[in-house]
Amino acid sequence: MEKRIAVLPGDGIGPEVMAGCQRVLEAVVDRFNHHFVFTEGKIGGCAIDAEGTPLPDATIKLCEESDAILLGAVGGPKWDGGPSQLRPEKGLLGIRKKMGLFANLRPVTTVKSLIPASPLKEHLVNHVDLLIVRELTGGLYFGEPSGRDGDAVVDTLQYTKAEIERIVRKAFELAQVRRHKLTSVDKANVLESSKMWREIVNQVAPDYPDVEVEHQLVDSAAMQLIRYPEQFDVIVTENLFGDILSDEASMLTGSLGMLPSASLRSDAVGMYEPVHGSAPDIAGKGIANPLAMIMSAAMMLRYSFNMHKEANAMEVAVQQTLEEGYHTSDLAIEKGTVLKTSALVDKVIE
Amino acid sequence: MEKRIAVLPGDGIGPEVMAGCQRVLEAVVDRFNHHFVFTEGKIGGCAIDAEGTPLPDATIKLCEESDAILLGAVGGPKWDGGPSQLRPEKGLLGIRKKMGLFANLRPVTTVKSLIPASPLKEHLVNHVDLLIVRELTGGLYFGEPSGRDGDAVVDTLQYTKAEIERIVRKAFELAQVRRHKLTSVDKANVLESSKMWREIVNQVAPDYPDVEVEHQLVDSAAMQLIRYPEQFDVIVTENLFGDILSDEASMLTGSLGMLPSASLRSDAVGMYEPVHGSAPDIAGKGIANPLAMIMSAAMMLRYSFNMHKEANAMEVAVQQTLEEGYHTSDLAIEKGTVLKTSALVDKVIE
Ligand SMILES: CC(C)[C@H](C(=O)O)[C@@H](O)C(=O)O
Ligand SMILES: CC(C)[C@H](C(=O)O)[C@@H](O)C(=O)O
Repeated sequence: MEKRIAVLPGDGIGPEVMAGCQRVLEAVVDRFNHHFVFTEGKIGGCAIDAEGTPLPDATIKLCEESDAILLGAVGGPKWDGGPSQLRPEKGLLGIRKKMGLFANLRPVTTVKSLIPASPLKEHLVNHVDLLIVRELTGGLYFGEPSGRDGDAVVDTLQYTKAEIERIVRKAFELAQVRRHKLTSVDKANVLESSKMWREIVNQVAPDYPDVEVEHQLVDSAAMQLIRYPEQFDVIVTENLFGDILSDEASMLTGSLGMLPSASLRSDAVGMYEPVHGSAPDIAGKGIANPLAMIMSAAMMLRYSFNMHKEANAMEVAVQQTLEEGYHTSDLAIEKGTVLKTSALVDKVIE
Repeated sequence: MEKRIAVLPGDGIGPEVMAGCQRVLEAVVDRFNHHFVFTEGKIGGCAIDAEGTPLPDATIKLCEESDAILLGAVGGPKWDGGPSQLRPEKGLLGIRKKMGLFANLRPVTTVKSLIPASPLKEHLVNHVDLLIVRELTGGLYFGEPSGRDGDAVVDTLQYTKAEIERIVRKAFELAQVRRHKLTSVDKANVLESSKMWREIVNQVAPDYPDVEVEHQLVDSAAMQLIRYPEQFDVIVTENLFGDILSDEASMLTGSLGMLPSASLRSDAVGMYEPVHGSAPDIAGKGIANPLAMIMSAAMMLRYSFNMHKEANAMEVAVQQTLEEGYHTSDLAIEKGTVLKTSALVDKVIE
């Protein structure tokens, strides 16, 4: 199959992990007789530097003409002082919104060799396998008004029924092909938007009789993720709640440097990026961990291209590399071998 | 000294833990020659049942005429189906707002005998001693509009500069009498309200030169709380962020059943309540853990009555009781003695 892939390396370690990821993808292309056309675009800080905007029109056009988007990472202290519209993050928020990528999937799964690196006790994280489904184009991130009026300031948490329903249905569908359990997280004892959210979950639930649904308040979910993370299968929640809970969840299994994410819409187009940030402190040193980017590309193969064999091959390659003890310096694996980015990519390709 | 204390036991285990707490307070009164006048009021579900509203006027009046308020817990499944205005939580939100209790203090401190009950590895929680200062009368909980308009729904995160400044100054002051470190948590890369929040923190910081300030994004803070909780001294943040982070933090040290909170305003008046909820499943069985309520009363002695010796006496009594291995069944202490609520209170009084 021929696929057009928009490649947005971004800032910091973005270009390094992206380069490694592309090499792995090329190995997959060779082995499975596909044809991938990679086209690079700018986003975030590097786009501000080059074109004066974090999301140039050319990048939007590129993404619109592609079958999938790979994104490295955006941001860094260099651009932190700028006005709102000239912040790298605006590029990320902008492309999510422009492309209508409303469903952000963040899986967190125990990797055996990394369990010792978890801050949690081993018996709590032996079998974590959860998926956070975060609404990504609405909620508190995008509601209007958002701004100042004299001494007052507001942000707005805004949803329509249709926006809530499509993310909730997406989460139900994902639960159907996983362990058939959905936890909807809201703050229905305080927020009106959460009350509507909960109503809609209850309304659509009968369409998915094979999925067991429960509701948790967001404060309670933040506790439960630490107390007993194995209770979760699919979690669905509002944009900002999902931001917070997915970062919290990313710490559970000691595998932060490996966590991928997918941002999807109703058709097959999606954007894939590691959960980690641009890590400006280690950028350019050739020591960044490429595994999260590689795992994100595997999600692309699966969700956008329907290439399950290929995705499995990549994921298994990553697992094996780790089991053989090879890793970058960020992962706390005892008795392993620390490699630089490109050497680790070589191992994965092997 | 004579003090008028409004006693709002509320729902579920609220009345049980409140009764135990009052017995301990009476022992303190006796020993230190104070005179406390306790007057009971209704709030939450029990108020809905008795008076048709979660916050009767008589309760507001009682609180306004008191030097401090002790609150047990509100809520339970019995009232969950009701309309917004008839939910127990509205009583809690209402009394916070009516009394102007803008500063919610939630300390989380390692208790040696409970470390084994922490979900985190021991080396991460040996010396946790943090204080979350949550803004309590503004932000996403109280902003207008909040409601539906056809198929759309909004909630509003709203602040004035003055509201942000007073909570931030409060947090700086608390850091000054602790370890001189303040972490302000926001989402300044996305929210306009967070940008103003961060500006104000930076503006008032020079007035507290002995306090080191840092900013963390809320998603990152949710990670850091698990990764390395000992890095925190005082954390200050918006109402909902504080709700989520304080519940997350409450899991760190295995001591959830012991965690107190204080809700303060500019004068000495405050409301004191355990962090745990009304636990309807165990209500009425006489097995509820009264220690969080007792620790909350100790905070009252300290913050509202300036009775530091007395507060210390209560806190030390709780510590000793635990060290001697006495506890209720919720705490996971190996080789201890499980007692019922009233027997544990007896031990604390001893
Ligand atoms: C960079 C930032 C705007 C972004 C977000 O908050 O969505 C990031 O934290 C994420 O989770 O992808
Ligand atoms: C009961 C609820 C309204 C309340 C809150 O969200 O403030 C509770 O979770 C708390 O943290 O005190």
